[in-house]
Amino acid sequence: MQVGVVMGSRSDYDTMNGTLDVLRQLGVMYEVRVLSAHRTPDLLASYAARAERLNFTAIIAGAGGAAHLPGMLAAFTRVPVLGVPVQSRALSGQDSLLSIVQMPAGVPVATFAIGAAGAKNAALFAAAMIATHAPDVRGRLDAFRAAQTRAVLDDPYFDGQPQAGEA
Amino acid sequence: MQVGVVMGSRSDYDTMNGTLDVLRQLGVMYEVRVLSAHRTPDLLASYAARAERLNFTAIIAGAGGAAHLPGMLAAFTRVPVLGVPVQSRALSGQDSLLSIVQMPAGVPVATFAIGAAGAKNAALFAAAMIATHAPDVRGRLDAFRAAQTRAVLDDPYFDGQPQAGEA
Amino acid sequence: MQVGVVMGSRSDYDTMNGTLDVLRQLGVMYEVRVLSAHRTPDLLASYAARAERLNFTAIIAGAGGAAHLPGMLAAFTRVPVLGVPVQSRALSGQDSLLSIVQMPAGVPVATFAIGAAGAKNAALFAAAMIATHAPDVRGRLDAFRAAQTRAVLDDPYFDGQPQAGEA
Amino acid sequence: MQVGVVMGSRSDYDTMNGTLDVLRQLGVMYEVRVLSAHRTPDLLASYAARAERLNFTAIIAGAGGAAHLPGMLAAFTRVPVLGVPVQSRALSGQDSLLSIVQMPAGVPVATFAIGAAGAKNAALFAAAMIATHAPDVRGRLDAFRAAQTRAVLDDPYFDGQPQAGEA
Amino acid sequence: MQVGVVMGSRSDYDTMNGTLDVLRQLGVMYEVRVLSAHRTPDLLASYAARAERLNFTAIIAGAGGAAHLPGMLAAFTRVPVLGVPVQSRALSGQDSLLSIVQMPAGVPVATFAIGAAGAKNAALFAAAMIATHAPDVRGRLDAFRAAQTRAVLDDPYFDGQPQAGEA
Amino acid sequence: MQVGVVMGSRSDYDTMNGTLDVLRQLGVMYEVRVLSAHRTPDLLASYAARAERLNFTAIIAGAGGAAHLPGMLAAFTRVPVLGVPVQSRALSGQDSLLSIVQMPAGVPVATFAIGAAGAKNAALFAAAMIATHAPDVRGRLDAFRAAQTRAVLDDPYFDGQPQAGEA
Amino acid sequence: MQVGVVMGSRSDYDTMNGTLDVLRQLGVMYEVRVLSAHRTPDLLASYAARAERLNFTAIIAGAGGAAHLPGMLAAFTRVPVLGVPVQSRALSGQDSLLSIVQMPAGVPVATFAIGAAGAKNAALFAAAMIATHAPDVRGRLDAFRAAQTRAVLDDPYFDGQPQAGEA
Amino acid sequence: MQVGVVMGSRSDYDTMNGTLDVLRQLGVMYEVRVLSAHRTPDLLASYAARAERLNFTAIIAGAGGAAHLPGMLAAFTRVPVLGVPVQSRALSGQDSLLSIVQMPAGVPVATFAIGAAGAKNAALFAAAMIATHAPDVRGRLDAFRAAQTRAVLDDPYFDGQPQAGEA
Repeated sequence: MQVGVVMGSRSDYDTMNGTLDVLRQLGVMYEVRVLSAHRTPDLLASYAARAERLNFTAIIAGAGGAAHLPGMLAAFTRVPVLGVPVQSRALSGQDSLLSIVQMPAGVPVATFAIGAAGAKNAALFAAAMIATHAPDVRGRLDAFRAAQTRAVLDDPYFDGQPQAGEA
Repeated sequence: MQVGVVMGSRSDYDTMNGTLDVLRQLGVMYEVRVLSAHRTPDLLASYAARAERLNFTAIIAGAGGAAHLPGMLAAFTRVPVLGVPVQSRALSGQDSLLSIVQMPAGVPVATFAIGAAGAKNAALFAAAMIATHAPDVRGRLDAFRAAQTRAVLDDPYFDGQPQAGEA
Repeated sequence: MQVGVVMGSRSDYDTMNGTLDVLRQLGVMYEVRVLSAHRTPDLLASYAARAERLNFTAIIAGAGGAAHLPGMLAAFTRVPVLGVPVQSRALSGQDSLLSIVQMPAGVPVATFAIGAAGAKNAALFAAAMIATHAPDVRGRLDAFRAAQTRAVLDDPYFDGQPQAGEA
Repeated sequence: MQVGVVMGSRSDYDTMNGTLDVLRQLGVMYEVRVLSAHRTPDLLASYAARAERLNFTAIIAGAGGAAHLPGMLAAFTRVPVLGVPVQSRALSGQDSLLSIVQMPAGVPVATFAIGAAGAKNAALFAAAMIATHAPDVRGRLDAFRAAQTRAVLDDPYFDGQPQAGEA
Repeated sequence: MQVGVVMGSRSDYDTMNGTLDVLRQLGVMYEVRVLSAHRTPDLLASYAARAERLNFTAIIAGAGGAAHLPGMLAAFTRVPVLGVPVQSRALSGQDSLLSIVQMPAGVPVATFAIGAAGAKNAALFAAAMIATHAPDVRGRLDAFRAAQTRAVLDDPYFDGQPQAGEA
Repeated sequence: MQVGVVMGSRSDYDTMNGTLDVLRQLGVMYEVRVLSAHRTPDLLASYAARAERLNFTAIIAGAGGAAHLPGMLAAFTRVPVLGVPVQSRALSGQDSLLSIVQMPAGVPVATFAIGAAGAKNAALFAAAMIATHAPDVRGRLDAFRAAQTRAVLDDPYFDGQPQAGEA
Repeated sequence: MQVGVVMGSRSDYDTMNGTLDVLRQLGVMYEVRVLSAHRTPDLLASYAARAERLNFTAIIAGAGGAAHLPGMLAAFTRVPVLGVPVQSRALSGQDSLLSIVQMPAGVPVATFAIGAAGAKNAALFAAAMIATHAPDVRGRLDAFRAAQTRAVLDDPYFDGQPQAGEA
Repeated sequence: MQVGVVMGSRSDYDTMNGTLDVLRQLGVMYEVRVLSAHRTPDLLASYAARAERLNFTAIIAGAGGAAHLPGMLAAFTRVPVLGVPVQSRALSGQDSLLSIVQMPAGVPVATFAIGAAGAKNAALFAAAMIATHAPDVRGRLDAFRAAQTRAVLDDPYFDGQPQAGEA
């Protein structure tokens, strides 16, 4: 196992699916589960211990609103925690972002963008952590990045040719 | 009577219905009415006096925009007031939240999250207040909390098993 | 014991002192301690259990930044939790406020104003909860409220007399 | 009497003094008093009735934080209410502004800028309301506006002459 | 003529229609036109002069985004200007609100809520200004306010009767 | 070539199309391409050099979220860069705006409004830059501005005539 | 004359001095004056006409709060207007920024960062506009940019050498 | 070498010193330099290549305002980039935070809290990344975390004993 993916609620799945997609694409082994800081607080310590015991490279935790899941996991373990602020309804994820990123000195959570972009980027970041020691993941990550560069370069629509104005 | 539920406008009903649902589920006696700080200011004092006379455990007041209802009721009575910021149109409830939570020292309003989550949580909080002295409500509240924990634990979808990456 | 007061860090004391002052003034029995969601996560469950065992009327928890202390205590116990957002440095407590008030449905935290006003009001609110069953606290609370009303009424400076303009 | 000036707390005086200064300068008759929506709610109705009975042209109400004073006075009387958001400590008056300006349809409060500028402008606005029917106030108001225009025109420092660059 | 209603763009009509509706309902004479601070700046001075010449009680100006129309009219005339922040697309009217309300000391704009509520309230406020000297408008305004109070009191849905909980 | 238009992603096209429309309308020669600060960072220097070599009057760069494209192009060239903050999903372009406008002293980016209005205005601004030395563009720009003024003046709907109230 | 610098008030001088410094350093000819959209609205049209007549390359306008000066000048002339949001007291320039940058489609204002950085960058941007046709200014601008790059490269303090940790 | 620390400007040193302190305390090898995305853009690619060649575990990049340094380094290399938003003057680091955290999908930056807390936490996070493979760093990190826990537990001031109220 390399990465644990947790989310505060089933409703976060639409966002966190982006994490799983990227992990699969890059061949990173992961497990995924719903784990709620607020509804299942008793599981936090044991999940964190398990992540430490299984030597996870990272835990990716997505949560919305007053999002305590990433920060509490980081409190229970030294395993690096990557936080994904899920877009909340009233405040569009501004609450999620601040609840995750503004951790006090001493207990870090690496935070990514609100919503889908953050979910994908947390996976890419975890892969980059793994890539340092795993040539196969490094190769797939490099290919992934090259492909997204090529997608811009090969864009058939805009050829950069000058356009004549109306005059 | 244990709890009075008031809202600033009929349009707040969609939100405050969550309060009523939870109170019913937990067997808490309540009454509910529309009471507008701005359109029926003369009723504030008498409603507050009634709440005191009937020894309400709490008043739950929902309002949106420049939401004055919870704070004004708290000004008129020592009965604990729980405020629910209803999500407003332009500012998504940021105005409602600040108008309710930022009360000056001396007159407290216990504030909950913007919208549906806050409406439910105000009811749960009122039930917790009652639970201190009412074993039946305490029992139902404990069952409610246990059920929501179990809902996470029993989630059939995610079994926490490792997923094989593509590689 | 009636109320437990906890704060995330010694640096929160300047703010939370306002809570202690008001509790003392109203004759409410309390205990106080530093308890950090992030630096002492293992204590959360036992503190919450103790609060339940000692039948605390409320826990007042102050914290700043990505403030998880009030929400995590609320996750571990049905004892009502009152949250005080401590004013943070960069974001002036906006992060503290959202991290505390925007709790998901199911686990309520009663939130008060950012900083000193909130600290005092959480104490007043706790006293009002107690006042329902404790005539002595009710008496002191009523006196406190009457005094603050009188302070406005007796204000010697402004007598409401018309002022002549320059004309 | 032409204008009633009220403020939620003595601490608002530093701000609201700007209102009084301008009213005096323009020869508008006023009375001033501390009136707290939260600490003296029972006075709101009678103050509003008095303003109506004395046929005040306007009530200028300054308040900070969850500022309910202007809106509640507007709820109790048709006399035009001008609201001045006093700069609050944690949120710099953003809470004051939204609590005053975001009134629901049906009960208007004319809102001015946060702090000193708003305090002065509320007085100027009240004077402009009076100026419609009072030639003397109109004259002084026109003179006030002309003077502030002249202060810009006569600015001795910048003469608009071209400056030679270093080259 | 009693009130001039202007708006920065035809697209503001959906919002400002609320102003016209209320003015008609209260029997206030008005004229309405599109007047853009940015696209027709040359008209500002003459419109302001006309408002002064016709002795308008107030100008109601609605605009969105970097909304300069209310403030510029206020710069050109002492006639009281009421500003309505139209809800903008990206920032939901936060830009409109700040561009209108944060006027510097010396040139006041009376600002109302973002969007429809503000549009209606500006009309009600203008009517209240007129009501001081016009008994017929005062009568209609009092009736309007009484009706909206009665609408709350007569609400058939909520009768304030206690609801039995599930238990 | 007079203006280079770049955008961070194909998905920005809906917004940036407004730039192209206006440039065409004003007879300004332009070229357009997708250029991503993050996915094609190696192209930034060469694109900037090309813009300098071809003596572009301006580069118009649209980007959303943590929008680095305008600022990085400005870092690589003295050619004036006009930045268009594309409206982002969670934060409605507030992130785009701050990422573009808050450049440190030394490397300026001229920033325009979030979304469609900004896209059009960047094109108008570029045309105004060109207009200083190109009478034909100046003529078309003046005509464009005159037309938008006339559109307000000729508005058939509102004739500015007084409306009779209900009374 | 190449650039006109205007500011809404003498109090903006501390900020706008940064503009003048940079213009002098780059040998750009400028004139400077206080010009208030709100206190001297009658001067806007004539100042704009003068800027057009003298063929200014740009007008740099600094203003704070509900900052209308840049937008109104842009309304009166096609001469490119560069807006500098001056840091305001209560809202730290957020009001200034939105009032300047959120111009509606049709009338652009090129906006720079809040405060000192924006003031300097507006000058650098104006110089870059001029540099297209003025080799001497281009030379000085290139030298300015090279110097600020060198200042980083030559930083004596940090030599990039590895630091030994405690271990 | 294990970690590269870069900052956009010497003025960021006060903040980033916290990073260096923690790295030294944990015995992590690092190098540090000033590297400006905007003033030394040509160095970005070579610095990134060097970080990759030397197999840095992470780059920690601190920057303020429209902070592009972390994101641009992440664009140039797969080496994990940790971003520290430096507190900016006008907007208190809200611009820094959004410019760093809101990266588009494809190029991740792990973001930490604004200011000093974020600077320390980025160092702790880097150490945690290293700790997976380096038992000595893991030992020091565990000791660091244990010490900060003990500091709370041993707090001599608050002993958690009940306090008697005044009554």
